[in-house]
Amino acid sequence: MAKILVINPNSNLNVTDAMADAVAPLALEGGPQFEMHTLATGPIGVQSQADVDAVALPLRAIVAERTDCSVFVIGCFSDPGLAVCREATKTPVLGIRECAVFTALSLGDRFGLVALAPASVKRHTRAFREMAVSERCAGITPLHMSVAEAEEPGALPKVERTAQTLIDDGAEVIILGCTGMARHRAPLEARYGVPVIDPTQAAGAQALGLALLSGSETIRPAADALLAS
Amino acid sequence: MAKILVINPNSNLNVTDAMADAVAPLALEGGPQFEMHTLATGPIGVQSQADVDAVALPLRAIVAERTDCSVFVIGCFSDPGLAVCREATKTPVLGIRECAVFTALSLGDRFGLVALAPASVKRHTRAFREMAVSERCAGITPLHMSVAEAEEPGALPKVERTAQTLIDDGAEVIILGCTGMARHRAPLEARYGVPVIDPTQAAGAQALGLALLSGSETIRPAADALLAS
Amino acid sequence: MAKILVINPNSNLNVTDAMADAVAPLALEGGPQFEMHTLATGPIGVQSQADVDAVALPLRAIVAERTDCSVFVIGCFSDPGLAVCREATKTPVLGIRECAVFTALSLGDRFGLVALAPASVKRHTRAFREMAVSERCAGITPLHMSVAEAEEPGALPKVERTAQTLIDDGAEVIILGCTGMARHRAPLEARYGVPVIDPTQAAGAQALGLALLSGSETIRPAADALLAS
Amino acid sequence: MAKILVINPNSNLNVTDAMADAVAPLALEGGPQFEMHTLATGPIGVQSQADVDAVALPLRAIVAERTDCSVFVIGCFSDPGLAVCREATKTPVLGIRECAVFTALSLGDRFGLVALAPASVKRHTRAFREMAVSERCAGITPLHMSVAEAEEPGALPKVERTAQTLIDDGAEVIILGCTGMARHRAPLEARYGVPVIDPTQAAGAQALGLALLSGSETIRPAADALLAS
Amino acid sequence: MAKILVINPNSNLNVTDAMADAVAPLALEGGPQFEMHTLATGPIGVQSQADVDAVALPLRAIVAERTDCSVFVIGCFSDPGLAVCREATKTPVLGIRECAVFTALSLGDRFGLVALAPASVKRHTRAFREMAVSERCAGITPLHMSVAEAEEPGALPKVERTAQTLIDDGAEVIILGCTGMARHRAPLEARYGVPVIDPTQAAGAQALGLALLSGSETIRPAADALLAS
Amino acid sequence: MAKILVINPNSNLNVTDAMADAVAPLALEGGPQFEMHTLATGPIGVQSQADVDAVALPLRAIVAERTDCSVFVIGCFSDPGLAVCREATKTPVLGIRECAVFTALSLGDRFGLVALAPASVKRHTRAFREMAVSERCAGITPLHMSVAEAEEPGALPKVERTAQTLIDDGAEVIILGCTGMARHRAPLEARYGVPVIDPTQAAGAQALGLALLSGSETIRPAADALLAS
Repeated sequence: MAKILVINPNSNLNVTDAMADAVAPLALEGGPQFEMHTLATGPIGVQSQADVDAVALPLRAIVAERTDCSVFVIGCFSDPGLAVCREATKTPVLGIRECAVFTALSLGDRFGLVALAPASVKRHTRAFREMAVSERCAGITPLHMSVAEAEEPGALPKVERTAQTLIDDGAEVIILGCTGMARHRAPLEARYGVPVIDPTQAAGAQALGLALLSGSETIRPAADALLAS
Repeated sequence: MAKILVINPNSNLNVTDAMADAVAPLALEGGPQFEMHTLATGPIGVQSQADVDAVALPLRAIVAERTDCSVFVIGCFSDPGLAVCREATKTPVLGIRECAVFTALSLGDRFGLVALAPASVKRHTRAFREMAVSERCAGITPLHMSVAEAEEPGALPKVERTAQTLIDDGAEVIILGCTGMARHRAPLEARYGVPVIDPTQAAGAQALGLALLSGSETIRPAADALLAS
Repeated sequence: MAKILVINPNSNLNVTDAMADAVAPLALEGGPQFEMHTLATGPIGVQSQADVDAVALPLRAIVAERTDCSVFVIGCFSDPGLAVCREATKTPVLGIRECAVFTALSLGDRFGLVALAPASVKRHTRAFREMAVSERCAGITPLHMSVAEAEEPGALPKVERTAQTLIDDGAEVIILGCTGMARHRAPLEARYGVPVIDPTQAAGAQALGLALLSGSETIRPAADALLAS
Repeated sequence: MAKILVINPNSNLNVTDAMADAVAPLALEGGPQFEMHTLATGPIGVQSQADVDAVALPLRAIVAERTDCSVFVIGCFSDPGLAVCREATKTPVLGIRECAVFTALSLGDRFGLVALAPASVKRHTRAFREMAVSERCAGITPLHMSVAEAEEPGALPKVERTAQTLIDDGAEVIILGCTGMARHRAPLEARYGVPVIDPTQAAGAQALGLALLSGSETIRPAADALLAS
Repeated sequence: MAKILVINPNSNLNVTDAMADAVAPLALEGGPQFEMHTLATGPIGVQSQADVDAVALPLRAIVAERTDCSVFVIGCFSDPGLAVCREATKTPVLGIRECAVFTALSLGDRFGLVALAPASVKRHTRAFREMAVSERCAGITPLHMSVAEAEEPGALPKVERTAQTLIDDGAEVIILGCTGMARHRAPLEARYGVPVIDPTQAAGAQALGLALLSGSETIRPAADALLAS
Repeated sequence: MAKILVINPNSNLNVTDAMADAVAPLALEGGPQFEMHTLATGPIGVQSQADVDAVALPLRAIVAERTDCSVFVIGCFSDPGLAVCREATKTPVLGIRECAVFTALSLGDRFGLVALAPASVKRHTRAFREMAVSERCAGITPLHMSVAEAEEPGALPKVERTAQTLIDDGAEVIILGCTGMARHRAPLEARYGVPVIDPTQAAGAQALGLALLSGSETIRPAADALLAS
C-alpha cells in the first residue's frame, strides 16, 4: 500500500491536525494512505527566513531515511528545504506552494495570493520570479495576521475582503497562502464563484496522483546525477 | 459518486481505449469514476489547426449538457476548446497539455517536450508563451511521427533518443506530447531516472483531486461573469 | 487589380458599413481595392468565446475559396480564426488586433487599450501574453459598454475619460478595442495629442502595403509545411 | 497632397536610389508622394555606434524644419535618432527596424534576421530587448558582409543559406537587416515560401497608411509634453 | 597612480562640484585619484533627448583622447553616449544609471527610483527594459522638479514622501535619479532604514574597484572587434 | 577604521588564502580593512545543496554577532545564506555571485559563466531566473572540474576553451564561477580582450565602496521590518 508522508516543518500539533483534516478527503479505501509527521525540532511556526533555513536539513534527514514512502509533501507555504530534499532521494518531493500555484494555473488564467504578513509578500514575490510565474500572478495581498489568527473562523470577513480585492485586480483563482486556512475555502468559493486553492490539499492531490500512477518506478529529476555531483 | 468525464476529441476508438488504460490506475473503489467519451464527429486525429478549431464547439456542447460530472478532461495535447468549454460551465475543465506542463513544473526545474511533428512544435511554442512557461521549457523536439506511429512499441528507441537530447539540454522532466505514448513512460523513467509525464494521466490525477476535494461547491473561474458578458 | 478582402465575422451590416467607411481613405485610384464581406452565418456580435470559435471555420472556408484576393483582413478585435485561416492559404491573413498593436508600437513606447467589457479584458490579457507584448501595454480599461453603445457619438466622453486614465498610466498611443469606434479617433487625437489607432484602419493600411509590394509572390509563413503536416 | 520624407542618414547616393526603388511601388496616382532625402553630412555607411550617434541631431534638424511632411521615415536599420526626432516634431517618425519587426510579427509567429556584421548582431540584440520582442526572434545571423557586398546580386546564395538556417531554427518570417537588400526579397520568398521583409518597404507601407488616414490631425505621442519638459 | 575620470556631460560647474563632493570619500591616500571633467560644450543640464544625443560624440572624443585614465565615469543619469564611448576605447566606461541600478540589486530585491520629471520616467522605463531589470523595479516616481530644485535642502520633504511611496510599493532600495541629490542620502537612510543609492557614488565605487584590481590589463568588452567592424 | 568581513563558508584554508590574495589589491593604507573568516564547521567545499543549506545558519550567527563590521561578504558562488543573513543584521551583506553578475552587467551587454560541474549549472540557472538576469546571460558552461582542479594553473587551457565558446555565443564579459580561479583572470583578459570577473574581487570592490561611503549610517533593506515580522 503506497504511503504519502506529509511533513509539518513546524512543531505545532494543531497545524498538523489541520493538515490531516485537509487531506482526509483524499484518502480512499484501497488507495494510498497519508501519514502525518510533525517536525518535533521545528519552530512553533515558520515565519522568518531563519525558520525556513533551520528546517531544511531536518527535512532532508526525514526524506533520506523514510524509504517506505511513495511521495513526500513539505507542508509549509514557504517550501522550505525543497531543493535539498530533492537532492537526497529519488522519491518525489512536493512543495505545497509550488503545487498550489500550478494547480491554480490549471484552472484559470491568473491567480491572487492571500498572504499572511508583509514580510512573506517579499519572499513569495522572489519565489514567483524564480518559478517564472510572476506574469500570471494578479497580486499578493497580506492579511496582516499570524498563522493562528488566520485559522480562526473569525478571520473569514477579512479573508473575503482580501480575495475580493484580488478578484477585482484580475484574479480568476484564489490561493490561500498558509496551511491553516482550509476552512475558509468553501465559503469563499460559494461567495465569489471562483476556485479557491488550499495548498496542502493541492499538494495532497498531486501526491495522490503520483502515488497511484507511479508504482515504484517514478523517480525524481536527475537525482543520480545530483547525488554523484 | 463523483464522475470525471474524459473526452477524446477525435473519433479514433483506439485512442480512447489508450486513454482509458492510462487513467485506469486512478480509479479506486469508492472514489470518483472515469467515464470515457469519444467525439463521434471528431476527426480521426487532431493534427491541424482546422482539426483543433473543428472540435471546439462540439466539446462545448458536451460540457454544457453533462451536468452530472464533477470534472471534465479534454483529452488532446493541443487543448482544443479549453476557453470555450470553461465559458460554458461552472464545472472545472482541464486541458491535458496544461496539466502535463504544470505537473512537470511541480517535479523539476525545466521540462522537455517530445512532440510529434514540426507543425505542432510551432503550436506548442505559441501556447507555452501564452502560458508564460517558455523560460522553463528546455526544448521541444519533434519525433517526425504520426500519432499512430508514436503509439507503437517500436517507437521507443526514437523516443528515447529524443528524450536524451532534451535531458542534455537541461530538461529535468520529460513530457510525452500526445495521448498515445503512455506505454513509453515506464521504460523512459527506468532508463533516464527522470520523471516522465503522460498528459492524460497528469490531467486524470488533477481531476481526481478536484473531484475528491470539491464535493459540489468548487466552480470554474468567474463563470457567471463570463456567461453574463 | 489587387483586391483586399475585409471580412466582418459578425452578421451585423451596420458594422460592415462602419468598417467600409474606416478603410475608405485607403482606397486609391489605380490602387488595390477593398471588398467587404459580411459573414451571413456569424453572430450579431462577437462577444463570447463561443462567438469567437463559431466563426473560425467559416472564415477559413472563405479564405480557402477566395483565390482572387491579395490579402485577407479578419475584421474583429478578437482575431477569430487567425491561425486556422493562415493554415488554409498562402495569401497573407491579417488580424486587426495584431495590426493595431504592432502599428501602435511603431509609433510610441507603450499603448493603452480602450476595451468594451471586463470579459474581453481577460481575453486580451491572454492574447497580449501570447503576442509577448504585455511589457509594452500600459493598461487595458473597459468601457462597460456594448459594441452598439460604443459606436454612438454619445460615447465619446466616456471614451475620453478612459483614454485619459491610460495616458496617466504611461500610454503614449491609444488603441480603440473594437471595430466600431473609428469616429472617436480624430476627436481623441485632437484632445490628447497622442496617436489613436482604429484597428480596422491599422489592418487596412498594412494590407494596402502588402498588396502594393507583393505582386503575386508574397506568401504566408510556411504554408506549405503547414498544409503538408 | 501628402508627402512622406524618406531620409537616408548616410551620404551614399546609391543607397538612396535603392531605397527609392524599394518604395516606388507604394506611390500611387493621387496618393501620398515619397520624397527622398540624402543626409549630405552623413557617413558613407552607418556601421559603427559613432556613425549612429553622429547622424542623430542632423536628422532631428531635418524633421524639425520640414513642416510640409505627413510622415518621416528614418532609412537605416539601426534606427538612428528615432527618439530625438520624435521629441522634435508632432509629425509621426518611423524607424525602418521597428517597422520591419512589427510588420513581420503581423505575418507570422517568429522572425529571423539576416544581419550584416557580428557587431550589428549585438546592437540589434540590445534593441530587440528594448523593444521587448526578443521572445519572438528566432535568431540573428550575420552575413559577414559590408553593405555594398550585401546589395550585390551575387550575395543571394549566401543570403539564402542564412535564411535557411533561420527557418530551420523556427523563423516564419525573414527580415533583411539592411537597406540595400530589397532585390533579394522576391527570390527568397519564391524559394522558401515565407514572407521576406525589406525594412524600407515595411516603413514605407506604414507611412503610406498613416498619410492616407491622418489628414493633418494625427500627431506624435505626447510631443507637447516632451517639448515642454 | 591610477586615475578615474568623472565626466560631467553638462556645463554646470555646480553639478561638477557636487559630483566631486560625492566621490570624495572614495579617494584614499595611495589609491586611485578622481579627476573631474566638465564638458564645456554641454548643455546647462541634460534633460531632453536632444541634450542626451548632443553630448554623445563629445564624450567619445574625451575617452578616446585620455589614454592616461584607468576608468571613465559618465556622470549623468541618462547614461548619454555609453555605447559610443565603449566603442572608442579599451578602458572601462561606466554609466551612473547602470551602476546605480546594479548596486541597488546587490543590496535588495527591488528598487524604487526617485526621478525628476515625467518625461524622464519614460526614458528610464525604456532603459530598464533594455537593461532587462523591469521586473526588479518597484516603481519610478517623478518629483516634478528641475535638477536645481532637487539639489536644494528644501527638497528633502518631497523626496521623502516620494521614497515612502516607493517603499510602500515594495522597494527595498531607493535610487536617487539625478547627480545632485547626494545630500539627501543620509537623511533618507536614517529615516527609512533602507539603502539609498546616489548614482555618482555608485559608479565611483565601481570605478575604484576596477582601478585597484585591473592594473593595466582589464579592457573593455570586445573593443577590438568593435573597432574593427 | 571600517572593517569588511569576508567569510569563507567552507573549512578549506587554502580557499580562504586564495580569497585573501584576491582582495589584497583592494586594501589601502587608511582605507577599510579586509578580515578573512573561515567557517570551521563548514564542509571542505560547498558543492551540493546540502552543503549550501548547512552553512546558512552558521553564517547568520556570524553576521549577527560581529557588530564591529561595516560590510559582510559571503565568499561562495552559490550565495549560501544570503537571505537569512540579511534578515539578521542591518549591516550590508553581499553575495559574490550577485556581485559578480551585477558587476559584469555594468561592463558589457551579456555575460558568460564558466561553471564547475553540471549540477551547479542547474543551480545557477534557477538563481539567474530569480535574479531576473537570464536574458542577459549568454551561457553557462561547466568545466567538469572540482574546485581544487579549477584552481590549478594547469586548468587554464580548459578555462580558455570554455571562455572562447561563451564569447562565440555572444558573451561580452566572462565570470569565473568559483572562488579559486582568480589567477586565471589576467591571462584570460589578455588573450580575449574582454573583462573577466573574479567573484570575490567583485564583491570585495563593492564592499570597499559601501564601507567608504556609508560611515555608519547605511543599513540593510527593511531590516527592521523583517526583524519585527
